[in-house]
Amino acid sequence: MLVHITERCTVRRGAKLYMNSPTLERLFQPSSVALIGASKEEGKLGHEILRNLIEAGCQATLYPVNPKAEQILGLKTYPSVDSIPDKVDMAVIVVPASAVPGIMEQCAKKGVGAAVVISGGFREVGTQGERLERDLVQIARAAGIRVIGPNCQGINNPHFGLCATWPLVKRKGPIAIITQSGSVGAAIACWAEEEGIGISKCVALGNRVDVNECDLIEYFSEDPNTRVIAIYLEGVADGQRFIKVCSSVSRKKPIVALKGGRTLIGMKAMESHTKSLAGRDEVFDAVCRKTGIIRVDTLEQLFDIAKASAFLSEPKDAGVLIVTSSGGFGILASDTAERLGLKIPEPKEDAKKKLGAVLPSQCILSNPFDLTMTTAERYELVVKEMASDPEISSFLAIFGDPISGAAEAISRAQRSTDKPIVVAYLGGSDIEKIERSKMHELGIPSFPSPERAIVAIQGMLKRSQYLHADHS
Amino acid sequence: MLVHITERCTVRRGAKLYMNSPTLERLFQPSSVALIGASKEEGKLGHEILRNLIEAGCQATLYPVNPKAEQILGLKTYPSVDSIPDKVDMAVIVVPASAVPGIMEQCAKKGVGAAVVISGGFREVGTQGERLERDLVQIARAAGIRVIGPNCQGINNPHFGLCATWPLVKRKGPIAIITQSGSVGAAIACWAEEEGIGISKCVALGNRVDVNECDLIEYFSEDPNTRVIAIYLEGVADGQRFIKVCSSVSRKKPIVALKGGRTLIGMKAMESHTKSLAGRDEVFDAVCRKTGIIRVDTLEQLFDIAKASAFLSEPKDAGVLIVTSSGGFGILASDTAERLGLKIPEPKEDAKKKLGAVLPSQCILSNPFDLTMTTAERYELVVKEMASDPEISSFLAIFGDPISGAAEAISRAQRSTDKPIVVAYLGGSDIEKIERSKMHELGIPSFPSPERAIVAIQGMLKRSQYLHADHS
Repeated sequence: MLVHITERCTVRRGAKLYMNSPTLERLFQPSSVALIGASKEEGKLGHEILRNLIEAGCQATLYPVNPKAEQILGLKTYPSVDSIPDKVDMAVIVVPASAVPGIMEQCAKKGVGAAVVISGGFREVGTQGERLERDLVQIARAAGIRVIGPNCQGINNPHFGLCATWPLVKRKGPIAIITQSGSVGAAIACWAEEEGIGISKCVALGNRVDVNECDLIEYFSEDPNTRVIAIYLEGVADGQRFIKVCSSVSRKKPIVALKGGRTLIGMKAMESHTKSLAGRDEVFDAVCRKTGIIRVDTLEQLFDIAKASAFLSEPKDAGVLIVTSSGGFGILASDTAERLGLKIPEPKEDAKKKLGAVLPSQCILSNPFDLTMTTAERYELVVKEMASDPEISSFLAIFGDPISGAAEAISRAQRSTDKPIVVAYLGGSDIEKIERSKMHELGIPSFPSPERAIVAIQGMLKRSQYLHADHS
Repeated sequence: MLVHITERCTVRRGAKLYMNSPTLERLFQPSSVALIGASKEEGKLGHEILRNLIEAGCQATLYPVNPKAEQILGLKTYPSVDSIPDKVDMAVIVVPASAVPGIMEQCAKKGVGAAVVISGGFREVGTQGERLERDLVQIARAAGIRVIGPNCQGINNPHFGLCATWPLVKRKGPIAIITQSGSVGAAIACWAEEEGIGISKCVALGNRVDVNECDLIEYFSEDPNTRVIAIYLEGVADGQRFIKVCSSVSRKKPIVALKGGRTLIGMKAMESHTKSLAGRDEVFDAVCRKTGIIRVDTLEQLFDIAKASAFLSEPKDAGVLIVTSSGGFGILASDTAERLGLKIPEPKEDAKKKLGAVLPSQCILSNPFDLTMTTAERYELVVKEMASDPEISSFLAIFGDPISGAAEAISRAQRSTDKPIVVAYLGGSDIEKIERSKMHELGIPSFPSPERAIVAIQGMLKRSQYLHADHS
């Protein structure tokens, strides 16, 4: 941690980045939060964020600030930050940009430690906004206030009930999200909530005047609630530091990254969005290979591979045993596996013989291992028998029918081996929903199609290959 | 229709295929159905199928057949087909393979018109099964019984309440599914139900001793409830006829196809599954290009492109206008569009000027058209203004925030233009669910990620290019 603190104290890239607070603790676990720009009006951000903080069960004391209201959503309202009769750890700011520097002055006087500036209207809108942003930075730096944003969708720490963003996502889980697009973060967080997985943190970076992706990657590498870091970036704030930080952190926790602006059209759109300098896509590709970042191509892959990596240890090698109740899904999984360079090794003769003796005659003892109409227990049987095969490094269990007890059977199978088991469950209507949700409770990643499950296995394999290559 | 009937009377490929019933009407709208092998035991297929038929509100009279029960699920049970005191249009058969030829004899005597043989244990298991299958075919052909299967997951016609399959899918909709894997059909049907879209028919082909994909494609081309035909195939039954039928039908209705066994490993798995002769993948690719079939790569694409094609007319050309509330999603959509060969034309200056006059200053008047924090009505405004631009052939509306009223606004916009509007709605938690379901009610295809929405537009464009190329 010493290295970590030293690095953070460095002033980088001229005036834009600075560090004078040793940790980001006050951002994620503040003892008190002032919401500046709290609103009585439903639909306004200042209202929605207050409601989300309340409904998420925020462990901090909440102080809505609004000079025109006495009470909002049952909470006493304060006319200004300095009228709050308590110390304020963190400020969440949703007032118009022109008022933000003044608010920051008040926060500085009050001794606020961290500010999440959600308001837009800064660098992204031109010269006048640039001036406001400069003022904001100057005041914050002088006072030692750590800043997220401005022009961002806020932060969420469900483990502390701190939903200073939208929509409301409460479920605690293992995925930390860092994003240059608030919507991308919200989408991943919503999926994680819906599937019963949850998130550890979500931070929308906005204009990154202070806290950037490197600070957060380092912080999350030490965060006991985070098992995987999922990132959406359009450009990196500091290339050299990014490489250094990711090279070190990716050995400890998987980092999965989606980069916007891969193509010329995408880059053009990006320049309007975050004004990031894109650089050539091949450069980012090289950075990922060098640092062990698992690079993905789509939003769904970002979620899928983060989910698999959060629950499972990486497969040691490329051999996958596919166990299925559906021949068709087995074929689709095989096609995808071959296309992505995975291997589908044939089971050994003695294992086939053993399994053939206990399984019904219609089962196809090959890879894919087609159980046809079957029970969940037979998947367990096959995985346990095949786990000792050195050619097999991971399992894909495909449930193509409404098979009950799948989650428990796979969980028992997983407890018997350290080779990862990924599930595709589909075609099962209500039972599918129940089983997939149970699986996520039991730490088994489950996907809605055989192709997505295979892509998740390949994503995990990439990190494994990186870790092994470096140690050899 | 004359050509159609004549074709069906031809005996093709030796003994395997035959035609002597002019239409498949008795399969999809039978006046009475005997379920042979109905069971009292929950979990058994003979029980689940009977329950699904009852719960789907089957319009046919149902006759469970089981010599050992008097009543199942409240219905009087008959000891055999011939004891049913009524004519039997269709038989659904779930008894063990060895008993099937005997049952077919009884069906023949009873004058049954069509049989869905769900039982497995025929050609797919070896010599003995081959013999049973030969017997089955011989009896059925002599009696003029149309057969689906054997070794299949049954059929579904929600427009008639005929769910002779599993799981229970009741929602009526525009997608017809033909599949060589029951699970693939079930997955697509479940997704269609879950998203409020529904299916027109679903047929699992099984061993295809009689009715094959060509018969069904022709039938669905005339079916008023079917707007798009989604197919999963491992091999085609009759290549020449397949080309002829698809060339003709694809001009009338979109045909979307996923083929299993593209790779060597996939082909090996396929030979165990349906014993289809795969042929080289490039051959099927050429067939698709020749016939106008929209070929897809994954199960989700099969559903996504069928969904878009069911609701919308094809875009005339490659230009897409992306309208978004999220810069990040706009970039991801742009990246995908460029990768797939779509175009993202810059809006004309006069349109920008007009829209600039009425939209807030933070909107980015470009393509992607980034509305940032916005209302649903502004999407409508942009689409209506840009619809006359000849460079724009389709729209992608991305809702990256929980924006209410999205479905109605897009529906109004769609009524004002014949250029298709595809939606990606995400990051909106509960509001997202409500809006996406409303959209499907209103005939607007909505996707859970920007990339999937772009892939759907490209799928529709492929058919459009085929239709235009041929007419030029």
